Parts: sequence; structure tokens; C-alpha cells
Amino acid sequence: MPQETPSARRRQIVDTAIELFGKWGFTGTSVDQIAAAVGMKKGSLYYHFESKQEILDAIHAEVLEALFTQAGFAAGVITQAGLDPCEQLRQVIENHVEYQWRNVRYLVVYDRERHLLPASARRKAHEQETEYTEAVVEILRRCQESGCVDATLDLEVLTYALFGALTTLRRWKKARLASRARRHEIATNLHALFTIDHVHPQSPG
Amino acid sequence: MPQETPSARRRQIVDTAIELFGKWGFTGTSVDQIAAAVGMKKGSLYYHFESKQEILDAIHAEVLEALFTQAGFAAGVITQAGLDPCEQLRQVIENHVEYQWRNVRYLVVYDRERHLLPASARRKAHEQETEYTEAVVEILRRCQESGCVDATLDLEVLTYALFGALTTLRRWKKARLASRARRHEIATNLHALFTIDHVHPQSPG
Repeated sequence: MPQETPSARRRQIVDTAIELFGKWGFTGTSVDQIAAAVGMKKGSLYYHFESKQEILDAIHAEVLEALFTQAGFAAGVITQAGLDPCEQLRQVIENHVEYQWRNVRYLVVYDRERHLLPASARRKAHEQETEYTEAVVEILRRCQESGCVDATLDLEVLTYALFGALTTLRRWKKARLASRARRHEIATNLHALFTIDHVHPQSPG
Repeated sequence: MPQETPSARRRQIVDTAIELFGKWGFTGTSVDQIAAAVGMKKGSLYYHFESKQEILDAIHAEVLEALFTQAGFAAGVITQAGLDPCEQLRQVIENHVEYQWRNVRYLVVYDRERHLLPASARRKAHEQETEYTEAVVEILRRCQESGCVDATLDLEVLTYALFGALTTLRRWKKARLASRARRHEIATNLHALFTIDHVHPQSPG
């Protein structure tokens, strides 16, 4: 068997911990179980991570990284010259669907164990989430201004409904989200739900 | 101080446990902490509940009861003679917003600790949720048929988006949901988002 690099080993430990934390929770999973599932001795695991908390911190660091990228994406979309709000909204939805799919396993652990994050990391996560939310609200606001989203709808309800639809995507049957084409379809449908179709407007019945 | 009835004491223990489980998780909360927070001796607590698991079971029983009521409500709405699908959808959304608000604290615990439910209770919860989901899907399908919901939209995406918007309501700032009038506004806006306005159709820009 070829020798694995320390970083590959680290990766394997983190991935295994994500599986187990997702199933049994952080407090319900022991370092022994993680080591056994990876197929290594507990002592070898401690070579890579000093404690179970340090593994959780590594998972949360990846979530923070993903949140940072996502907030950056939305901020970039807003400032892109010549992009109309309706198209900005489409790009943000498309990106969020992909983000949910890519990070589906992290997000299960993050949602359940975020109260175990150290205060500084929790503050950072909150900052990124706020930055992202504000960017999305700004895009929705511009959409209402431009007539691409129904201006009579409450902006707060629109925002929460959009985030609700996007952040619960991971509850879908995994097989449905595994297809790139289906994810694109989901994004297109969500975009259509929130926007007014200017090409084929619905006529009154 | 007036003597409290056993059932009032039980209620107090369950309510306190909901708070603590919500904050620290089931495994992160001890019977000692619950007893201390209620202001009773651990031995007295054991008079009402044999174990921490039994308290969690009591919480879950209330969630099951709420799910049962909700599924029954949706089933009743469907069979109500002379109620058009658009109005059925409005009633279900209104009811779900109220349900989320009434059960907001249970739902935090339920979401996080449902993997600790005994298999039989998990099966019952799943049954109720399936029954409810199917009723809502049926209503959305009828809405598409009657032209009240855009028939070009994917029914699965519509369903998940609606559930996503409704089930994440409890993440809203609590103060926003505390007002009955605001909850009604939220339900009205959600209904408007998912349906096509026949009275004031949006004209193309």
C-alpha cells in the first residue's frame, strides 16, 4: 500500500468525523470511533489532531471558508458592471444551489454543532452570513425597483422565503441533487418563482 | 406559595428541558442542570420522570401531537366542499405559520434531537410528515391545474420551496413573529409569492 501523506490522512480524518458527527452528533461520537472508522490507532490520530474539538474546529474552518467564498461571490455579482438585477439574482441562486450541494455534509454538522464554535469563529461566521444576506437583500431590492420581482411583496418575506428555499435544499433526496442538470433546473425554477416573467407574462384567468 | 399540581410541575420540567436542550443539546444537558433550573431537588424530578430520555420522549410526544393536528388540518382543508385550491393553499400556509410560531421552541429541539427518537416514534413522525406533505403537494397540483399557481413551474421545486420558506420561519427574529398581525402578513405575502395574482396581474415591463 502506498504511503499516504499527512494532509491526505488529515483529510480522511475530517471526512470521517463529518460522517460520524452528522450521524451521532459531536458529543455522541468518541475519538475511538473516529480512529476505528478511519482504520488507524487512536495514538496515530492524535498525531494529526490534539483533540476531538480540534477536528470540529477544522470542519468549521472549512465552513467559514465556504461562507467567505459565497459572500465574496454575491458581492462580486453586485458590482459587476452592466449586469441587470434579474440576472444578478439568477447567478446568486445558481451559485447557492451549487454551494448547498458541494457542502451538504459540512452543513449538517455546522447546523447542529455551531453552538460549540468558539466565540471568535462564531463571530466570523455571523459576519460572513450577514455580508451575504445583505448582498442578497440588495439584489432583491434592485429587482423590485426594476420590476423583475413583484414590488408589492414585502422585502423581508421575500428574503426569508428565498433563504428558506435555498438553505433547506440539502433535505432533498440526495440523488435528486446529485445531477448537475437537475440542480440547474432547480435554480431556474426558483428564479422563475421569485421573478415576474417578462417574456410570457401570465394573463388573468 | 401555593402548592403546584403534579401536572403543572411536569409542564415546568418539560418547558425547562426544552430551553436547556435547545441551548446545550440533549447530551450536553444533565438531569442536575434541569432540576436546578426548575428549582427542585433531583430526587423530586425523578418522581415525575424516570430519566432524561423520558423527558425527551415527552417533548417528542408533543411534537408528534402537533404534527398529527397539522396533517389533519391539511387533510380537512382538501376535502372541504366548495373551497377552491387557491383558498386551500392560503389556509394551509396561514395554519403552518401559526404552527411554526406556537411550536417554535419544540421545533428547535426536535430538529436537533430527532435522531434520538425511538424507532417507533420516528416512524410515526415520518408518517405524519408524509401525510402532511402529500396533502400540500395535492393542493399545489390543484392550484396549477386551476391556474392559480404557474403551471410551468416544477411541482417538486414548488413543494420544497414552500416547505423551505415555512419550516425556516422560526429562524426569523422572534419579535417579528410574535405579532399576530405580522404573522398574517407573512402568510399573505407567501401566498402571493406562490400564486398568480388574478385581480392585478403584473404587466410586462
